[in-house]
Amino acid sequence: MDPNLEQQLDTIVTAAGAGSRKLLALTTDEKNAALRAMAGGLRAESETIEAANADDMAAGKQAGLSVALLDRLLLTPDRIEAIAVALEEIADLPDPVGSILETIHRPNGLVIEKIRVPIGVLLIIYESRPNVTADAAALCFKAGNAVILRGGKEAIRSNRAILDAMIKPLADGFPREAIQLIPTTDREAVGALLQMAGRIDMVIPRGGEGLIRRVAESARIPVLKHYKGVCHVYVDKNADLDMALAIAVNAKCQRPGVCNAMETLLVHEDVAAQFLPRFAEATGVFHVELRGCAHTRGFLPHAKPAQDSDWDEEYLDMICAVRVVASVEEAIAHIDAHGSQHSDAIVTDDAQAAERFSREVDAATVYVNASTRFTDGAAFGKGAEIGISTDKLHARGPCGLEELTTYKYVIRGTGQVRG
Amino acid sequence: MDPNLEQQLDTIVTAAGAGSRKLLALTTDEKNAALRAMAGGLRAESETIEAANADDMAAGKQAGLSVALLDRLLLTPDRIEAIAVALEEIADLPDPVGSILETIHRPNGLVIEKIRVPIGVLLIIYESRPNVTADAAALCFKAGNAVILRGGKEAIRSNRAILDAMIKPLADGFPREAIQLIPTTDREAVGALLQMAGRIDMVIPRGGEGLIRRVAESARIPVLKHYKGVCHVYVDKNADLDMALAIAVNAKCQRPGVCNAMETLLVHEDVAAQFLPRFAEATGVFHVELRGCAHTRGFLPHAKPAQDSDWDEEYLDMICAVRVVASVEEAIAHIDAHGSQHSDAIVTDDAQAAERFSREVDAATVYVNASTRFTDGAAFGKGAEIGISTDKLHARGPCGLEELTTYKYVIRGTGQVRG
Repeated sequence: MDPNLEQQLDTIVTAAGAGSRKLLALTTDEKNAALRAMAGGLRAESETIEAANADDMAAGKQAGLSVALLDRLLLTPDRIEAIAVALEEIADLPDPVGSILETIHRPNGLVIEKIRVPIGVLLIIYESRPNVTADAAALCFKAGNAVILRGGKEAIRSNRAILDAMIKPLADGFPREAIQLIPTTDREAVGALLQMAGRIDMVIPRGGEGLIRRVAESARIPVLKHYKGVCHVYVDKNADLDMALAIAVNAKCQRPGVCNAMETLLVHEDVAAQFLPRFAEATGVFHVELRGCAHTRGFLPHAKPAQDSDWDEEYLDMICAVRVVASVEEAIAHIDAHGSQHSDAIVTDDAQAAERFSREVDAATVYVNASTRFTDGAAFGKGAEIGISTDKLHARGPCGLEELTTYKYVIRGTGQVRG
Repeated sequence: MDPNLEQQLDTIVTAAGAGSRKLLALTTDEKNAALRAMAGGLRAESETIEAANADDMAAGKQAGLSVALLDRLLLTPDRIEAIAVALEEIADLPDPVGSILETIHRPNGLVIEKIRVPIGVLLIIYESRPNVTADAAALCFKAGNAVILRGGKEAIRSNRAILDAMIKPLADGFPREAIQLIPTTDREAVGALLQMAGRIDMVIPRGGEGLIRRVAESARIPVLKHYKGVCHVYVDKNADLDMALAIAVNAKCQRPGVCNAMETLLVHEDVAAQFLPRFAEATGVFHVELRGCAHTRGFLPHAKPAQDSDWDEEYLDMICAVRVVASVEEAIAHIDAHGSQHSDAIVTDDAQAAERFSREVDAATVYVNASTRFTDGAAFGKGAEIGISTDKLHARGPCGLEELTTYKYVIRGTGQVRG
């Protein structure tokens, strides 16, 4: 690697570490005041941000970015105002830091408190949406962490302008090194940062599966991530079929391009004859393409035959794989083999089947009689979210401010020593 | 790698995955009954275990193992009985699985429960003590996890005999594949297991720093670990010096070979003249070698001069580094630069200094007016512990049954769909 770049990264990460320690001294009120000042900075510098964004847009057009990517990149006065409002909403959320998770009184008089604390230094790697610069910085900051941001190259001018606008109104004593943007989009720089175990405490990649896999495969530091959402709805033999239809159609059609949308419908064989034609009719309105197992196609002759690969596919589209199963066990086994540990639902009136499904399906979120579409920070009442985790450790499911913290034990004594 | 070994590992890990799913169906009573049966198996097979251990001891002597290592390896009838009792104690501990960590009632009627669940498949890599085979297997099992054990080569016959004795009395329907011992101590096998992200959920290395670093550096799966304990006691200017003396002497001398023993004493300059001679006298009884900064040696001319490397040293011995500092800030900065995020203590009567120290020292456990020696599962009231974590994520400090679990969200509705 270019020794100048290496030096530059070292300086950034060292400063972030120092910044994270200074954040420990800030009160909740001081953090919230800073977040409101940042929102004000975005409003005050709206035109500067739009100008920087216009340069990114021009370069993006020249580079042949798709219309969808250009739309993600675009900042308008309304979008900048929305970013500012999001910062104010983060200021309004409760501060997770300092809350006491558990108190243990020991017979020897020691009082052990398990206290929520910031994690330290976080690295966020993201793609084209420049609003992530503000959102991610604000969430990490509110949870008391220093953050190093590394956005996509197509948004680099917009990201810089947003961060500058946020930092500008802060008081001189504010630890600005706690919020930094990597000045390059060099891939080598990311590779080097991902080796810095002990100096960067966690990395959160936000973007497509390719980005996330690249990060997870090379990181020597913990990664908070989800690769994809292959979510299932299982309609049990004891389901209320009207409810099942509403849930399955909502999970598939209400917003098919997101990770908590259903990709595969599983139907118990006892209700398949009744349920599948109704599902096909209701999803037909949305032009959903059905890909069914042989058994399914017995009831839905117009469905395409599903290939083996369909069961593992995240379509993010108006396509749905459909399989008929003989039991709740078979539904669980299918999800075990093909699911992504994201969100899976059972529709049933049978308490035992519900209990079994929720106990044995190994996913971050398991639903009984509700749509998988509720897996997100807002629907969980967490406010803004930094992402969704399908990992097993540290945090699972929607991740908001609490999931950007860890804990420590503080033990108070009166001179106790070990006997 | 030998294709036979590769195949063998694949079979073991696949079986562990299947075993972990079967454990989800076991009730607490069933798990506890199995643990008691395992304890009975150890007692019934005590002679077989001793015979296997005698073979390991003979091989160890021939290989020139040190007296200390041979003592760790040795199993006597009393030691086997102690292992059996430890399993019964684990049976008596509360089951962490299924406890509800949080309940969120949403305005739309959804009830979101955050529930403690097993992690899945755990890999334990350990060195010469064969009792770890039983302890680690029992803790992982009680927390509902499948476990793959990989012990040291010097204990392989003892480990096998212990595991066989534990498994033998279990009923035919018991998922024996949930507790497995790798039949080889081939290092390549460990290397291969550490790449199995998604099939093994977490690895816990137990042993010396070398083993732990090797595991952490090559693992593609999360590692629960602590490298070492460079623990500090800071005697503030407002300390009760009698209390400070008792705590510092206890932290250094009561059991110097363990990770929560003090390695460096920090003393505020205002009390150094009074405190240091008393500390030197009290630790002199234990023949503690003091290595002091220049300022310290002004008060203790017989102390050796500390080298820069002394501040980072885990002596695990009757040696103590000593530094005089000008303030609580300087003490925190020293710990920040040289500590291992394990256990650090302040002795003070000043509430502000205590608050600052406990807030700003970034360690798993921070003590106010108590000895660092309390950092372990028993002293925390957690019962048996699988280890101590100095990582920031998943679990910090002493790790018992709860730290061998994760959580999932189970959401119950009445047909809710996303609008």
